[in-house]
Amino acid sequence: MDTIGFHYIVEAAGCRPEVIGDPERMREILLAGAKVGKMEIRTSYFYRFTPTGVSGVVIVAESHITIHTWPEYRYVALDVYVCGTSSFPEEAIDYILKELGCTYAHVSEIKRGIRDEDVYTHTILTWDEDLKLTQV
Amino acid sequence: MDTIGFHYIVEAAGCRPEVIGDPERMREILLAGAKVGKMEIRTSYFYRFTPTGVSGVVIVAESHITIHTWPEYRYVALDVYVCGTSSFPEEAIDYILKELGCTYAHVSEIKRGIRDEDVYTHTILTWDEDLKLTQV
Repeated sequence: MDTIGFHYIVEAAGCRPEVIGDPERMREILLAGAKVGKMEIRTSYFYRFTPTGVSGVVIVAESHITIHTWPEYRYVALDVYVCGTSSFPEEAIDYILKELGCTYAHVSEIKRGIRDEDVYTHTILTWDEDLKLTQV
Repeated sequence: MDTIGFHYIVEAAGCRPEVIGDPERMREILLAGAKVGKMEIRTSYFYRFTPTGVSGVVIVAESHITIHTWPEYRYVALDVYVCGTSSFPEEAIDYILKELGCTYAHVSEIKRGIRDEDVYTHTILTWDEDLKLTQV
């Protein structure tokens, strides 16, 4: 299998505290996001921090989605990493951020597993997304 | 809880195929690495791809460790993401890479959850490590 993968590192601000503080709601959103992105779900694990916050992972055949949330700051750290070209990670991220009520995202897309003779490197592209106008 | 986290994105080359192709061996190494890094283990999940390769995640209280392996290329994509200051992620990574027999690593350290007024960003520092001399 090709080593190339696309890993999106997302800092999401302005998220709805009641959503990002609920592990079951977060599981529903990430599983639905994986489906939107045409990923093949293997397993998922979510749990609630004390006193607030959720950590979760969805393992997909293409690699993984992880999330860590800080409801008190309306902040979420989201990762989506996929190998191969059969899935649509950006569609998954757009769906997840919309469901979280995210208003602003700082994103780095890391292209991983780039072969350079006998070693591997990655390249990084970073951008910001102002999502306020798309939220209701 | 503070939003700041340190996320290490590692492309590891030259790894031992018989190690990185074995899901149970990978589980042992990542769990031991989490302990070396003083992380609090919550759960782990590892599985073998067809025909080769392993995907795995260790969820720790501090965030997560994930791995995806390509034995046919001696290549591993490793992530270690920790929040707080109680753990030692670089020690965990050094242990894991040594156990994998990695000879060369391309690493980006992403400082995540940096507050800038009402949004969050990250910064990235990238380097290479030639580990040939430390392997036996």
